[in-house]
Amino acid sequence: MKFSEVTVVRIYLTETGELQKTLLAKLHDEEKVRGVTVFRGVSGFGRSGKVHSSTLLDLSLDLPLVIEFFDKPDKVNHILTHLRKILPAGHVVSWNAHVNED
Amino acid sequence: MKFSEVTVVRIYLTETGELQKTLLAKLHDEEKVRGVTVFRGVSGFGRSGKVHSSTLLDLSLDLPLVIEFFDKPDKVNHILTHLRKILPAGHVVSWNAHVNED
Amino acid sequence: MKFSEVTVVRIYLTETGELQKTLLAKLHDEEKVRGVTVFRGVSGFGRSGKVHSSTLLDLSLDLPLVIEFFDKPDKVNHILTHLRKILPAGHVVSWNAHVNED
Repeated sequence: MKFSEVTVVRIYLTETGELQKTLLAKLHDEEKVRGVTVFRGVSGFGRSGKVHSSTLLDLSLDLPLVIEFFDKPDKVNHILTHLRKILPAGHVVSWNAHVNED
Repeated sequence: MKFSEVTVVRIYLTETGELQKTLLAKLHDEEKVRGVTVFRGVSGFGRSGKVHSSTLLDLSLDLPLVIEFFDKPDKVNHILTHLRKILPAGHVVSWNAHVNED
Repeated sequence: MKFSEVTVVRIYLTETGELQKTLLAKLHDEEKVRGVTVFRGVSGFGRSGKVHSSTLLDLSLDLPLVIEFFDKPDKVNHILTHLRKILPAGHVVSWNAHVNED
């Protein structure tokens, strides 16, 4: 089995706002990444300071969203640099991994 | 683009039981991690020995849950040590990654 | 706290087709991995060339699915080799991580 290197990226957002749409459109139309998957969390909290502890698992109108993609490390580097101005600091996590080639 | 090191943690649970609530409350109130996201799986199986092969994709009353968070490696280390007694062995996966700082 | 090495695997599929069922049955019955979780994405696009940009976040009948599991690196290697013929190239991402042992 043959593998090649990729960088996996997870961008942590919430459903509110247009950022997710902007990012998805850019990743698809401009950056042409191999593939993107969007996951919706069922609960969570962020740096906003909002305290949800008593109803932490209740449905919320502002659920967490994760935009995930992977591509060659160089390409990911370029993408993150291009998108730098619209990516919220502290919300883009990336690491190296392998993908099957055949 | 500036990155700093983080450790990503994924804790694999199921919806049954109070552990998820306890963990979320502790991560939020006591450990004060940057952010936590909870994902619900649509299917799965664990070490319980329960055989689901024939109906593997049917909806279940005990769906998998993943609690995910990331923070500085030292802080994550502390958190996992603090929470050690309530974390089920073999269910907490962690790895190093980078987060965007600006 | 004691950790041991694992390899995490994420297999990116869509809901269409039988591959997910075949894979889950094999992972459960034949490969006997510790545990598997299946996540459904709420949106995404892949290499198919299908353009979803205008309705990128609409519900679709062919939503993304991710099959995730982890196990000892040697065992994961074996599993991926066994399943090689049914795993779609470019859709299996893996990386090393740690799991808590106690």
